[in-house]
Amino acid sequence: MPGKADRAPKIHAFTGMFAMTERGHGSNVRGILTEAVFDPESQEFIINTPCEDAAKMYIGNATRGNYAAVFAQLIIHGKSQGPHCFIVPIRNEYGEMYPGVEVVDMMHKEGLHGVDNGILTFNCVRIPRENLLDKFGSVSRDGKYRSPIENTSDRFNAMLAALTPTRLALTFQALGAMKLGLTIAIRYSHSRRQFGPKGKEEVKIIEHQTQHLRLMPHLATALALIFTSRYAAEILDEDVYHSRDLVNNRPLQALVAGLKAYSTWENLSCLQDCRECTGGMGFMMENRIPGLKCDSDVFVTFEGDNVVMLQVVVRELLAQHTRQYEESPIFGLLRNWTSSMGDRLRTSFLAFSSDKINSLTFLLKAVTFRERVLQRGLAARLYSKVIKDKEQFFSAWNSCLHHVVTLALAHIHRVTLEQFALAVESCPVPKDQSLLMEFCLLYGTKLVYQERAWYLEHKYLTPTTSIQIRNQFLSNCSLVKDDALKVVSAFNIPHNIVQAPIAGIPNPRAKWAYYPEQDEDGENKKASWINAKL
Amino acid sequence: MPGKADRAPKIHAFTGMFAMTERGHGSNVRGILTEAVFDPESQEFIINTPCEDAAKMYIGNATRGNYAAVFAQLIIHGKSQGPHCFIVPIRNEYGEMYPGVEVVDMMHKEGLHGVDNGILTFNCVRIPRENLLDKFGSVSRDGKYRSPIENTSDRFNAMLAALTPTRLALTFQALGAMKLGLTIAIRYSHSRRQFGPKGKEEVKIIEHQTQHLRLMPHLATALALIFTSRYAAEILDEDVYHSRDLVNNRPLQALVAGLKAYSTWENLSCLQDCRECTGGMGFMMENRIPGLKCDSDVFVTFEGDNVVMLQVVVRELLAQHTRQYEESPIFGLLRNWTSSMGDRLRTSFLAFSSDKINSLTFLLKAVTFRERVLQRGLAARLYSKVIKDKEQFFSAWNSCLHHVVTLALAHIHRVTLEQFALAVESCPVPKDQSLLMEFCLLYGTKLVYQERAWYLEHKYLTPTTSIQIRNQFLSNCSLVKDDALKVVSAFNIPHNIVQAPIAGIPNPRAKWAYYPEQDEDGENKKASWINAKL
Repeated sequence: MPGKADRAPKIHAFTGMFAMTERGHGSNVRGILTEAVFDPESQEFIINTPCEDAAKMYIGNATRGNYAAVFAQLIIHGKSQGPHCFIVPIRNEYGEMYPGVEVVDMMHKEGLHGVDNGILTFNCVRIPRENLLDKFGSVSRDGKYRSPIENTSDRFNAMLAALTPTRLALTFQALGAMKLGLTIAIRYSHSRRQFGPKGKEEVKIIEHQTQHLRLMPHLATALALIFTSRYAAEILDEDVYHSRDLVNNRPLQALVAGLKAYSTWENLSCLQDCRECTGGMGFMMENRIPGLKCDSDVFVTFEGDNVVMLQVVVRELLAQHTRQYEESPIFGLLRNWTSSMGDRLRTSFLAFSSDKINSLTFLLKAVTFRERVLQRGLAARLYSKVIKDKEQFFSAWNSCLHHVVTLALAHIHRVTLEQFALAVESCPVPKDQSLLMEFCLLYGTKLVYQERAWYLEHKYLTPTTSIQIRNQFLSNCSLVKDDALKVVSAFNIPHNIVQAPIAGIPNPRAKWAYYPEQDEDGENKKASWINAKL
Repeated sequence: MPGKADRAPKIHAFTGMFAMTERGHGSNVRGILTEAVFDPESQEFIINTPCEDAAKMYIGNATRGNYAAVFAQLIIHGKSQGPHCFIVPIRNEYGEMYPGVEVVDMMHKEGLHGVDNGILTFNCVRIPRENLLDKFGSVSRDGKYRSPIENTSDRFNAMLAALTPTRLALTFQALGAMKLGLTIAIRYSHSRRQFGPKGKEEVKIIEHQTQHLRLMPHLATALALIFTSRYAAEILDEDVYHSRDLVNNRPLQALVAGLKAYSTWENLSCLQDCRECTGGMGFMMENRIPGLKCDSDVFVTFEGDNVVMLQVVVRELLAQHTRQYEESPIFGLLRNWTSSMGDRLRTSFLAFSSDKINSLTFLLKAVTFRERVLQRGLAARLYSKVIKDKEQFFSAWNSCLHHVVTLALAHIHRVTLEQFALAVESCPVPKDQSLLMEFCLLYGTKLVYQERAWYLEHKYLTPTTSIQIRNQFLSNCSLVKDDALKVVSAFNIPHNIVQAPIAGIPNPRAKWAYYPEQDEDGENKKASWINAKL
């Protein structure tokens, strides 16, 4: 941080910071306590931190930035209009703090050491009226509040919709970490040898059943996430291109919130397996996995805690259905679901019985069935609690949270498998298509396998077919283990980005740790189409 | 590391290091390549690193220690007698390296920054004949090898039995991390508030169903592990007290290997949930969870990789049974299992049907049933592959690895639930007993819940009882959430060891981060018995 003595102004070097979270309110942004009181006389807002819980926490770039986008309760004549966003100057071009602003460095974290996080507090800092970002609510010279969105809840959601692109960006970041981790772990597993038949050469560790069982499902998941996040990005690009307001695209918001939660959790679980599957080597910093783990660990709770994100998914799913019937938020939806859903489900149920369990059709129908039944079940439970038993919505919702989270993930599972299937379908090169199909079948099988208890409970699987699913899962993992090298090679991560000695790519800072590639087959044979596409 | 200039000898400050793992061989210790060639003329062993793969890796204290316990192939007249342990001087009392020894610092790791790990290589280092640790094998002056254990495999296992106490120590370390993490996360969850019913105060986050669902099962598991690791420690103490050789206590070796794997994995999963359940605060170093995670991450792969440990469990289980029938390693066992097991299982199956699913009897029978069926199934599969289909043992075993790992964990699940149940039974204070019983039921329910797919496949649960198990799991978690404070308080971790601001215990290095305790009820009411015992 430049001291006061450093008076050389840095022209064109203004940087910003995003100040939403407070000490007392992280997930529940609506409850933030920072105040922006309109003063009609001076035509200013007075930004103030009224108590310790109102301090802005975890603010990235807090120890260096010049301007902050501060979320605060907009207060006019003593009445709050809810959270709004204000531009507050923090430091001048010489890095000197403006009066009334205080910053505390939050120091050490598990990861992301390149980001300085700090606590921001404001002691009646005055900013011009024009510093309110007024897309969703403005204050006139004479102190009249106007908003294009009447309903305060809708207005609040509109502001939060701005988080959608960064949440999608986080999905891509998680995916990047996952691809790098998998590249390292899979390359190592295909060169490292340990144990083997008596009197013979030890086998590559990828041959151990437990090793490919742990890594292959993650690779299949990474592929599913690649295709699904691209799908979400295309919708987002379309909206931006046509200057559409994100707030009106609730399906996209639900998809991105769900993808954020699913991808960041899958990433952590993947990296942990990569770390364990590479043994002590995976614990060494030069092999990159520890850094990836520590940096991306926070992804699951920032930009919207994952458990909250999954609730956003379900709330949006409910909202979509409700809007369709233009009735009150719960009633119409429930009436619809509990009545007509039964028939549709029965149809789909009958249709599948002729499919083989190793067909994509069977797997797609299974995940679709699950999402629908969970949705119907949740609607019925909420209906019964809120409408029949007159339970408060908060406590009814809370007692269904496990169900909510399960439904949200089931939704994302269905969408990701669908997108993967569509990608396979549109693959123009037959050889690549069949390779991708193997991974797609593995992904679908994994989804059904991990929820087979649910399918058994709902008699969608019999004990016999459930055991078949397990065997299918085991054999799918074994089947793709050699093609895994082609896939990670098609990720096309430049060697200077990998730099993990155990991946056969030296790291100049750890010369002693280099494991030369011992691998002769497959490694450099790249499949043309997936090379170009992944 | 003291430089050569630092000539002040440190009297009584000799430290050692344990040099087993090599670059090429971690899990497969039998395959290590370091050589100890006996030279009858000089009555010395020549310790040598013949190739890069033979370098000793990850050696703790390598950059400072004076002596190393080096595992090497004992070679006499050109023939290897298998790995033996030798004391090799590395540095003199001034910290100066002896000739022929080289050390490379391995630098940065994910955690355990207090331990220096290095690579040791030997260039024909001569040590006296007496430096062979000769309990399991000695070399006479005239170069004759003698061992009290004839069979080389048995001899090798005898040497590895020495790892049992350190593996148990690791279980206690993992448990320590788990208890500290849970103390921090549960105390915070009982003071932090977020979201709530409309117009009312926000609720404590422990009230959110997803929050207690994530934390309570870990607390129950920690209790089960406390009682089980004590049970193992008592057996170990008895053996040490009576100077019995650990090698002869195979059940203990199996128990400790399994406990090591189970406890270290449970610890990581617990700490990850503690981190996520405390949000961004859990990512801050001052709140301790990141440090605990990074330090204990390596536990799952060192002192025996967990996947290997679970194989040790199953091999020992097989060996126990075999010994009983004094036949060849596989045959006798299989014959026994595949014939008589059926009847015993049927009896136990009939016996349970009158128990309620929320009784400890039901849960104990369920985990016992599962272990037995998995055991019988594995025996039958190996029998069929090796005996009938003449498949090589290595490949037969490898194709059953998923089954092996599942059985090993099922074994540990059964033992931990039994030990927990016994501890509850012997608790003398009725109030504490009923509190512990709640956690014991939760633990048993969790075990059955997480494997309910298997129980459904084997028709041990019906779809209806399986759904009941889920509801029981949800309600058990909710039931114990308030008592959780009493339990973590009974862990009796001194405040200066906790020092996590979010746990309401200030950390002098992060004054800004202190969250004063807001909690009024339960916090300081300690249950007498569990206080004294945990």
